[in-house]
Parts: sequence; structure tokens; C-alpha cells
Amino acid sequence: MQPAIRPLDRSLAAALQNKINNKTKPIGALGQLEQLALHIGLIQGTLTPAFAQPHILVFAGDHGAAKAGVSAFPQDVTWQMVENFLAGGAAINVFARANGLALKVIDAGVAHDFGARDGLIAAKIGWGTQNYLVEAAMSAAQRDAALASGADIVHALADAGCNVVGFGEMGIGNSAAASLVTHALTGTPLDECIGRGTGLDDAGLARKRTLLAKATQRAALRAETDCGAQALAVLAEFAGFEMVMMAGAMLAAAERKMTLLIDGFIVTSALLAAARIAPEVRDYCVFCHRSAEPGHRAQLRALHAEPLIDLGLRLGEGTGAALAWPLVKAAVAFLDEMASFAAAGVSEQIES
Amino acid sequence: MQPAIRPLDRSLAAALQNKINNKTKPIGALGQLEQLALHIGLIQGTLTPAFAQPHILVFAGDHGAAKAGVSAFPQDVTWQMVENFLAGGAAINVFARANGLALKVIDAGVAHDFGARDGLIAAKIGWGTQNYLVEAAMSAAQRDAALASGADIVHALADAGCNVVGFGEMGIGNSAAASLVTHALTGTPLDECIGRGTGLDDAGLARKRTLLAKATQRAALRAETDCGAQALAVLAEFAGFEMVMMAGAMLAAAERKMTLLIDGFIVTSALLAAARIAPEVRDYCVFCHRSAEPGHRAQLRALHAEPLIDLGLRLGEGTGAALAWPLVKAAVAFLDEMASFAAAGVSEQIES
Repeated sequence: MQPAIRPLDRSLAAALQNKINNKTKPIGALGQLEQLALHIGLIQGTLTPAFAQPHILVFAGDHGAAKAGVSAFPQDVTWQMVENFLAGGAAINVFARANGLALKVIDAGVAHDFGARDGLIAAKIGWGTQNYLVEAAMSAAQRDAALASGADIVHALADAGCNVVGFGEMGIGNSAAASLVTHALTGTPLDECIGRGTGLDDAGLARKRTLLAKATQRAALRAETDCGAQALAVLAEFAGFEMVMMAGAMLAAAERKMTLLIDGFIVTSALLAAARIAPEVRDYCVFCHRSAEPGHRAQLRALHAEPLIDLGLRLGEGTGAALAWPLVKAAVAFLDEMASFAAAGVSEQIES
Repeated sequence: MQPAIRPLDRSLAAALQNKINNKTKPIGALGQLEQLALHIGLIQGTLTPAFAQPHILVFAGDHGAAKAGVSAFPQDVTWQMVENFLAGGAAINVFARANGLALKVIDAGVAHDFGARDGLIAAKIGWGTQNYLVEAAMSAAQRDAALASGADIVHALADAGCNVVGFGEMGIGNSAAASLVTHALTGTPLDECIGRGTGLDDAGLARKRTLLAKATQRAALRAETDCGAQALAVLAEFAGFEMVMMAGAMLAAAERKMTLLIDGFIVTSALLAAARIAPEVRDYCVFCHRSAEPGHRAQLRALHAEPLIDLGLRLGEGTGAALAWPLVKAAVAFLDEMASFAAAGVSEQIES
């Protein structure tokens, strides 16, 4: 599967910058929002960008390694939180509602039978992954099926007119999987990729470190000369179904020239993999927040990314993306709605 | 004038923290938003805070020193931008509309006759201040009238049911005035309080530094033993009518237990003065953004404040407050709307 993602077309850059500079404000006075407005204009290929049908997709999956003790919460919390999403009571529900984002929850591989449910996209690849401490988390066929399912979900959204999509996740144990993926793909020392996740204490953190070092030794991944092949191998060894499906969704979203709202540590691990498969995906991403999870730093460095907000969040679910969304909308709004110096009859800067 | 501001009542702190900790998320996972939710609960004195009739007040005024060359823009831009506000074309209009804030523009002392206009509160103290390079910017009587007008405006809002107010400003030359106020009230070296404002080049910045050093020498303020008297003297020497009126508005807002949304460098200079007059005003403030204007750093240090966003903004008008407002709403929304572990049937953290 090689998605057909076009590199960002920069031909409108000068015209967009000129439009931004002629707004009634000092040059550059809106800081990072000005770069963001330019970026969205380039993604959409227009001087008058507009967002349509904004969505947050929350991918959920279970991890075979969760029972080995890599998380502060029991594995059942994955399906319980999916129920919480469906009932509208989780943080992502609150923030999506508050900020006008439609929310879709995807069962990518939760170890639970939800039956047919309103608001839940059934795309289960398996009842959780295998335990990467003893074998690969998934087969190549499962991985490819997850990538394809993620792409299908996004293509359906794009066909319906959606052009901006935020990514979120739920899966007890998935910060451990994200640590392994980040270590394998960026070369950052494993310990720098590992954090407390949902809130491990010191003993729990030490146990997580020991277990993940074992997983790395067990997998003994060879370096591949092909970045995409390397990323695919890493995903199969360590990732969760929710992470792989998200990577497939990201690649499709970039192919459709949507704006991708990137959340924190787990979402960015999926993006790291996606960006090895097709580097152009990076061009369509807005990095929404800096996670308190320490491995996020290495990911942002590898992706040369500067997020919009830094509030010490470490919840996942797409909450960082949902909270930053009003800033992204504001960037487009000023580009579309602010008066120019000429139109407003405001004098321009004095040459000194 | 001594406003009757009560120190923050912390009696609900434990109950609020308990409510936050029982939400379906790991303890502390919403970072700075959790502290913010607690803070708003304490301000409103309830476990179920709610915002009503959120407003942004933009105070506008002219500065006698503007013609001496402390700004990159001509003085006429003050009234031209007020016209832009009234026409809905400025950045603050766009962001206030996007984020559901009502906007009121106050003529605190613009050197222009607007006549009676929809959407403009006429509270002109004078046609701009005097030039602080040669004399005090305003008389004690003008300063006191500005403080009283600001209070009146906020009391009227509070009487109508508003309980959250953001502060913004417009006034060519007011970053220079804010530098002088910040230097005088915090003792930070003058040069560290001076920045490029709306975009001075190197020559303009050097000129601004020379002029403001002269203003400080001219005023030769004595140190007062009474902090409030000192602040009142500093305001009369250097401030604009828009800054003083804002300080009066802030004191009244805290007296009425409203939540104050604090914008960047100029707004925070008014708050510095207000907090010398009545230190309890600080308890009701949410610091919305970190300005790119260098003197903001000294102000935040003096107020022990950690802002919500840091996007390199340096526009004023209340734009930082308007952009951060969805985060403030989100903090209250999670406190009110998120399910608890018990209500959602989600398992809690494992003791390790």
C-alpha cells in the first residue's frame, strides 16, 4: 500500500503571506497563528480556506502486554472508557461538544463485544494484540488490514465533505507501545521514550522500563534500508491495532488534502510510522499540543514540530487536538474575516 | 477609592479537588486545566461554576507622547482602529465572534470625535493624555475620573448578569506607557521593560529607549511607603486613560467576584497598578497568554503568573484573552460535564 500523497503545493505562499501582511495589525503580530493561517491556505490551495465537518476520530484497542503490568490501570478500562465515550461522559466528549467537533469512536481491536452500537464504528481486527514480550503484537496481514480500515474510514469522511480530522486514542498499555515505536523509529534511547503513562509510581515506572527493554531485545529488529518497510515491521512488532489503524487513517487524510490535527504521545507515534511510509503526510499536520509524557519531546524533534499549546496534558483521547481546535479555526477566521488596511482606512506603518 | 475586594475564599478547595480527581481520567492528566477549574470554582464559590454573558472590553485612548516618536504607527491609527472595531473588521472582532464573546469598545480618551455610535461606550476623559516627556500624562482628578468610569462600566455589566470579563486595549504609544509603568512598579531595569511595540526597527527601538529614559528622569518619582499611593502616582505620570480606566474596571470586576481574563503587556501593566491598589484583585485573574513583548516577562514574574498560551502574539486589543477563552470554558466544562469513575462504571487505578 503506497498512498498517493502530494507534497504541499507552495505556489500560493507569496499571495497568502501578502494577504496576511495587509490585515489591520502590525506585521507578524499574530505570531504562530500567522504561520498556521499560511499553512492551512497551502493545504487547501486557496487564499480563502474554510473548514467543513470537523471530526475527531478516537481509535480504541487493547494490548496483549497490558496484563504484564505496563499500565497503572486494568485492561478492562479500555472497553469501559469506550462505553464512557458512547455515553458522552469522557473528557473528549466534553471538549468536542464545547468546540464543535463531531466525534466518532472506532473499535479497532478492543477485547470486548460491544454489539452493534450507535456512534461506534466496528472495525475490530482482533480481541487485542498479542503480547510483544513473547511474540509480535500482530501479523503482517492484521497490520495491513488495520491500515486499510483506517484509510476506508477517512475516505468515507472525505467523500461526505469533511476536510479536517483530529486523531485520538484509547487503549490501556498504549503509552508503552508508543515508547517502543518511538525508540525503534527515532533511535532515541529507550528510557527517554518511556514515561508514567496514566500515572505509574516510581516502582511501576521501573517495571515498565525493564519490560520494554525485554521487548526490544525479544524483537531484535534488523535495520532496514527502506524506511517504509522498517516502519511496517515496527508496527507489527509493537503497536496496537488502534495505532496502526490511525496511521492508515492519517495517510488517507493527507492523500485527500485534509488538515490533520495531531494530539499527543500515542497519536504522534502513529504519525512517526506514517511519515516513514510516506513523508509527505507531515505537510498536512497541525501539531496541537505538547504532552507531559516525556517521549513526546523526541517525537516532536524528529518531526521538526512546534505545537500550539503546552498545558501539561497527558490524557490522550484526542483531548489536546480538541482543545487546540479553536486556535486553528481562529487562524483561518482572521485570514478570511479581518479587514485590510486599505479596506478599513487605517494608516500603515511609518518608515523610519 | 478603596475597592472592597475579598481575598479568594478557599473553603471549597478540598471538595473541588476531590471532584476533579474523581473524573474519568488519571489524576492530574488535564494538567493546567485542572488548576484552572479549581480556580474558577473558588472564584465563583461553587462546585458547579458556570460562566454568564462573557465580555471583552476594549479600552481606547491616545497618548501625548505618541507624536514624539515612541511608536511605529501614526497617532491617527487609534481612532481608525476604533472605527475598525465598530465595523467588525479587527482581529479582536474576529476572535470574539469565533469564540462567543460579546465585545464592547470604550472611548476612554481618543483624540477624535466619534459622535454617538452604536457599540461605543463614550467615556472620554480627554482628547489624549499630555506628553509625559514634559509633564504628567494626566491630573489626579482625571486619573480618579478614569478609575471611577472603569468601575461604573463593570458594575453595569455585573448588574446585568455578566460574571467573566476580558480586557483589551488600543492606543498608539501605549506599549511605551506600559514600559514606564512596569519599570516604575516592578523595579525592572527600564531597557528590559521596552520592546518594539507594534514593530519598531532597531533605530526606532533605540529612539524609544532614549525618550523613555528621559521621561523617567523628568518625572523623578519619589518612592512612596504606601503601595497604592505609589501606583496612583505612577498612573498619573505615565499611563493612558485607557490603562487607568481598565485598572478601575479590574478592581470593580474583582469586587464583584467576576473572572478576569488578562491579555498581554498593556493590560498587565494596568493590572500591576490595580494589584498595588488592592492586591486581592490578583486572586480573580486568569493569565491568558504570554506576549512576545519582552516587558511582559517582568510583569508575569512580579505577579507570579503562568499564562495559558504562548503563541508569540504581540497585537493587544484583548486578542490573547479572546483566543484563550475556549480553554477557560473547557476547564469549567470538564468540571461540570465529565462523568466520575463511579457514575461511568470505569475501574480506578491499581495500587502498585
